[in-house]
Amino acid sequence: MEKTRYQRGLKNLAEIDGAAGQRVVESLRDIAPDFAQYLVEFPFGDIYNRPDLDLRSREIATVAALTALGNARPQLEVHIHGALNVGCSGAEVIEIMMQMAVYAGFPAALNGLSAARAVFAERGAEK
Amino acid sequence: MEKTRYQRGLKNLAEIDGAAGQRVVESLRDIAPDFAQYLVEFPFGDIYNRPDLDLRSREIATVAALTALGNARPQLEVHIHGALNVGCSGAEVIEIMMQMAVYAGFPAALNGLSAARAVFAERGAEK
Amino acid sequence: MEKTRYQRGLKNLAEIDGAAGQRVVESLRDIAPDFAQYLVEFPFGDIYNRPDLDLRSREIATVAALTALGNARPQLEVHIHGALNVGCSGAEVIEIMMQMAVYAGFPAALNGLSAARAVFAERGAEK
Amino acid sequence: MEKTRYQRGLKNLAEIDGAAGQRVVESLRDIAPDFAQYLVEFPFGDIYNRPDLDLRSREIATVAALTALGNARPQLEVHIHGALNVGCSGAEVIEIMMQMAVYAGFPAALNGLSAARAVFAERGAEK
Amino acid sequence: MEKTRYQRGLKNLAEIDGAAGQRVVESLRDIAPDFAQYLVEFPFGDIYNRPDLDLRSREIATVAALTALGNARPQLEVHIHGALNVGCSGAEVIEIMMQMAVYAGFPAALNGLSAARAVFAERGAEK
Amino acid sequence: MEKTRYQRGLKNLAEIDGAAGQRVVESLRDIAPDFAQYLVEFPFGDIYNRPDLDLRSREIATVAALTALGNARPQLEVHIHGALNVGCSGAEVIEIMMQMAVYAGFPAALNGLSAARAVFAERGAEK
Repeated sequence: MEKTRYQRGLKNLAEIDGAAGQRVVESLRDIAPDFAQYLVEFPFGDIYNRPDLDLRSREIATVAALTALGNARPQLEVHIHGALNVGCSGAEVIEIMMQMAVYAGFPAALNGLSAARAVFAERGAEK
Repeated sequence: MEKTRYQRGLKNLAEIDGAAGQRVVESLRDIAPDFAQYLVEFPFGDIYNRPDLDLRSREIATVAALTALGNARPQLEVHIHGALNVGCSGAEVIEIMMQMAVYAGFPAALNGLSAARAVFAERGAEK
Repeated sequence: MEKTRYQRGLKNLAEIDGAAGQRVVESLRDIAPDFAQYLVEFPFGDIYNRPDLDLRSREIATVAALTALGNARPQLEVHIHGALNVGCSGAEVIEIMMQMAVYAGFPAALNGLSAARAVFAERGAEK
Repeated sequence: MEKTRYQRGLKNLAEIDGAAGQRVVESLRDIAPDFAQYLVEFPFGDIYNRPDLDLRSREIATVAALTALGNARPQLEVHIHGALNVGCSGAEVIEIMMQMAVYAGFPAALNGLSAARAVFAERGAEK
Repeated sequence: MEKTRYQRGLKNLAEIDGAAGQRVVESLRDIAPDFAQYLVEFPFGDIYNRPDLDLRSREIATVAALTALGNARPQLEVHIHGALNVGCSGAEVIEIMMQMAVYAGFPAALNGLSAARAVFAERGAEK
Repeated sequence: MEKTRYQRGLKNLAEIDGAAGQRVVESLRDIAPDFAQYLVEFPFGDIYNRPDLDLRSREIATVAALTALGNARPQLEVHIHGALNVGCSGAEVIEIMMQMAVYAGFPAALNGLSAARAVFAERGAEK
């Protein structure tokens, strides 16, 4: 049932991205409510729900990809929260950013570190 | 000492990327030998040598980033080998590709899956 | 029901991308059968199924985006077929490519035109 | 005559992008006046002047491409205005953004929706 | 006069890209002859014709940009020819590729070096 | 010795990027001090230290690449300072931006010109 995908997605979204994820969904209510539904259902109800890769590994993959792409700062911040929520340490997040210098260049890494600093500050933790 | 970074890098490169990594270094001998050295030293002697993130997590990050960027197929194949060499299962690699559909679109995921298929075939394993 | 999204998606995929789309789905059977399902369900069962934008406009958007991104040639070819299947003329596809020179540069436009030439040849029509 | 391309371009720019386009041209006067001329002449005097694709389709292509690229927010906003000026509805713009989730990922779509929200607010229309 | 831009462009294209540039223009005759004209007029008749930056610097900029973008191999090869035609040494081209590792990552640099190797071989010069 | 690469890098960084480069290094002290070291050592101690390409050409390459990529505004501003510091005129920087319209599209060029305007203003020079 559609409903199950949505409910599964909401639960996973809450576990992974916490309040930051919820804010994204809320922000879509006015302009594209159906997209809020798809965002809960496909990424979080389908993909993140699959058992063959643990959530910590999934968030490492997402933080790495968004840092490398370098054009989605708000979503990168949400997923730095996500990585920290599912078991990554701040030091591990920093390592991912530094490693992205190798694959996407130093500017991508520097901007990733800037996003990490903002998230760490928001959570009241330097690292 | 420079020498130590290089030696450390060679050892890490061999452990992670195996023969595929060695082929990349060899291929640079004619055209840019100094770049072969930098490639060993900075990514593998400096970054991958750092203890704060395990190699399996590092390769997950790299495979995710290269799949998302979508413009570096040869290097993606090298690092799919790398991920499998340091403890990822084929099924986990597939999960990373599928997840990239969420962050970089379905074409990026499809092309990542195509790279995975090529590497799995080369290693004589469907999955 | 899940089944309905999938069935809807298969029907839309067949209408839009024809044999080229079917080949993409088939090619996933060995390596990522679940992804074949997601590909049918979310893009074609959810998005392309929405009534608020006609299929011709949707394919114009997709061809433009893939030409601009420039890193997904196989998928671009599939959607040039798609655009022609849902009512675009060859001349209109050429116009989209040319326009992308403005937004993503001349190389992106040239590579888009090269993809168009390949698809036109496959369909036995120069234009 | 050069003059004709420029005049043609100014007319098309005014029709498509309205005041937003004019502001872009004005902003170049101090730093790169020749580029203001090229911007009027090539994109708007040459490309948008061609009869083989209607303006509505052209703006759909541009909005899709800029949303997918995700690194040109000011220009995306100008062309959301453009799309609305030449006959797209707000709902159609939203559909394009949502569809870009399939080809460039959910973050690209979310940031496109954010740009749409800003433009709709500026025009005093929620949708 | 339009004719003058085109003639200026043809002359600059021949000087910069030589036979490789001519082949690009020829390849457009069947599918998009007007785009061949724009390609000669705007990039080569307008931009490369401007006196405020020397041709060697212009080709350095283009080779760097196409290496960093990493999604336009044929055009990168044309402009490696171009750089060599207007006074860059093979060693300088190699330096640009290596430097791009810093700004776009090692894979971009490796793929740039691969393009350089192909062009050097075509010209019968290892470096 | 490591120390030599670092010292060489600091000297080159100061010569090229001046105060802007120093601010980047300082900003990393809290969150990723090792990355500050790598940033000095590899790009500035290794790459920019190589004799086979002059600094003016190197900064032209970097400004072109970052303008084309379009997702690293802070680093683009640092390197516009850098280009001006090592001998480029403001007019030459403007030419690079304009040329990027050909290879990465008009939005990339416009955003590059916007970065140039900000840097010129900071340096108290309109051009």
